[in-house]
Amino acid sequence: MRKTDFITLAHGGGGKASEELIEDVFLPLFSNDILDSLSDGAILDAPKTGKLAFSTDSFVIDPIFFPGGDIGSLAVHGTVNDIAVSGGVPRYISVGFVLEEGLPIAALKKIAASMGEAAKACGVSIVTGDTKVVPKGGADKIFINSSGIGFVPEAVNINPKRIREGDSIILSGTIGDHGIAILTSRKGLEFKTETVSDSQPLNGLVKAMLEAEPDIRMMRDPTRGGLAASLNEIAKASAKGILIDEKAIPVKRGVLSICEILGLDVLNVANEGKLVAFVPEESSGKVLSAMKKEAAGKDSAIIGKVGGAKPGRVEMKTAFVGNRIVESLVGDQLPRIC
Amino acid sequence: MRKTDFITLAHGGGGKASEELIEDVFLPLFSNDILDSLSDGAILDAPKTGKLAFSTDSFVIDPIFFPGGDIGSLAVHGTVNDIAVSGGVPRYISVGFVLEEGLPIAALKKIAASMGEAAKACGVSIVTGDTKVVPKGGADKIFINSSGIGFVPEAVNINPKRIREGDSIILSGTIGDHGIAILTSRKGLEFKTETVSDSQPLNGLVKAMLEAEPDIRMMRDPTRGGLAASLNEIAKASAKGILIDEKAIPVKRGVLSICEILGLDVLNVANEGKLVAFVPEESSGKVLSAMKKEAAGKDSAIIGKVGGAKPGRVEMKTAFVGNRIVESLVGDQLPRIC
Repeated sequence: MRKTDFITLAHGGGGKASEELIEDVFLPLFSNDILDSLSDGAILDAPKTGKLAFSTDSFVIDPIFFPGGDIGSLAVHGTVNDIAVSGGVPRYISVGFVLEEGLPIAALKKIAASMGEAAKACGVSIVTGDTKVVPKGGADKIFINSSGIGFVPEAVNINPKRIREGDSIILSGTIGDHGIAILTSRKGLEFKTETVSDSQPLNGLVKAMLEAEPDIRMMRDPTRGGLAASLNEIAKASAKGILIDEKAIPVKRGVLSICEILGLDVLNVANEGKLVAFVPEESSGKVLSAMKKEAAGKDSAIIGKVGGAKPGRVEMKTAFVGNRIVESLVGDQLPRIC
Repeated sequence: MRKTDFITLAHGGGGKASEELIEDVFLPLFSNDILDSLSDGAILDAPKTGKLAFSTDSFVIDPIFFPGGDIGSLAVHGTVNDIAVSGGVPRYISVGFVLEEGLPIAALKKIAASMGEAAKACGVSIVTGDTKVVPKGGADKIFINSSGIGFVPEAVNINPKRIREGDSIILSGTIGDHGIAILTSRKGLEFKTETVSDSQPLNGLVKAMLEAEPDIRMMRDPTRGGLAASLNEIAKASAKGILIDEKAIPVKRGVLSICEILGLDVLNVANEGKLVAFVPEESSGKVLSAMKKEAAGKDSAIIGKVGGAKPGRVEMKTAFVGNRIVESLVGDQLPRIC
């Protein structure tokens, strides 16, 4: 068997080449006792009390390396964040790779290293995985699925049906950074200031928020479709109206300028390290101050409240033209944003 | 928004078209209370005692419809089987789709229907999912990741390190059916008898086996790489020698003929509905008879034992030439077998 610098079909065949790839690339970078046993399924401790949170996400982002991260760290953050906003403490991650024949092994190593580091920073273990290889042209470089398990404490119940009239809506920081970073890096557009993706884990932030107020009603991380899609989903699921205030929404000046130039509404632009939370009005002060103490929440702001709009609808108080309806787009502004 | 008969990039954008796809295609076919809440993470009951089993698999099989199944049922069976051979009772499944722009929605519906039926037959719920779309040419039709969670009873401990000298090795039925079915359907080779994939769930069979003998040491489903790869992995992980008997291994006559014509070793050919189990010799009779009572195990046979070969090595007693070493291939005989 000859070593190669590129992924070959044999690496996905389940034989010696697959074994070599696992031992040379993945195990050293992901290593933990559970993964090292290399069984078909990982055997894990279950929570003593409470519930499980379970989430899955596939990542097909283009380019695979971008300002602020890569497809590997993004895959870990994405699943960690889905678990966290569900109220779970993320514990275990699975990774499923679909690789294109010809992918440089150096690129795969760089991505795997970034996944290993992200998992460590998030306090989760990569406990099981799978690798498939498709012939050249059958996929574009690399796709990653990550699924995750978290433990949900008994006191926590994140559910849109628990949202009440008057609840405060808190956003954990600036919006649009991820989408604009990908858009500008892909199109090779030159702007004065480089926009960097906000891809980051939110589980530390969520922990601080739930310590301040275990009774948080609802959280979501507004990824594809942006803040507009998340708020619309929540308005629909809760059958409540949502009113947000345009000037309260944190946006970086550079991101806003690019949105204006390209004719994009920043409310529809993707994020990968932000969350929106619905909290009882009387606890909004303490939740906000707990959030501002965390690096991932330093720009947090109360951006609106429940009520003041038709049930199931999202409206925004604008600077000049009164209230306007905020809608989800039909699709995203650009494909393969995550 | 206009309805379309084909997947468009908008279906992966996280906005209204994504919502429509979920509501029109997935929810009616997968429906259960947990999925219907459409949260970022599914909130699930945890086991009262015992452990969790967690597994992931990505499916890139070509063709997506084949004799005996399709990529949808295969994705459910594959993950259910990984959980089952780990000793877990499969409970929850996630599904992550990567779709190519232009995929007919009718094909996706057929696949999703097949997943829903397979999940029902296996007694698992599809509780969370994700859909990404890549531009035409960025992937080949459809890839599916399925991850799963099972509950492992306290008495069960499936672990290659528990294998002992003298243990019996039981195979649950004929080998090579899946690989040959895919190979012949892909190449358009015409043979007198059509070979059908063995894609099927094994969790019922495993339940019966563990009821007969909770102390089963090790199980694995020999998928990619075939029986040879599974036995070699187990020989290596247990640091024991394995000796199997060629004439005891069940193989369909048609499968064997095609292997002979094409120069394939059936031991390396993929299966999707078989398992190999290592059981204490004294319980091999009762485990075998429990297996033969199940449809998925009716052709079960004792095919060998632990010992009689160098530690870490697999040997086979052949009909004519004495013992030969059984090795894993470097890769698989053909790509995209699962």
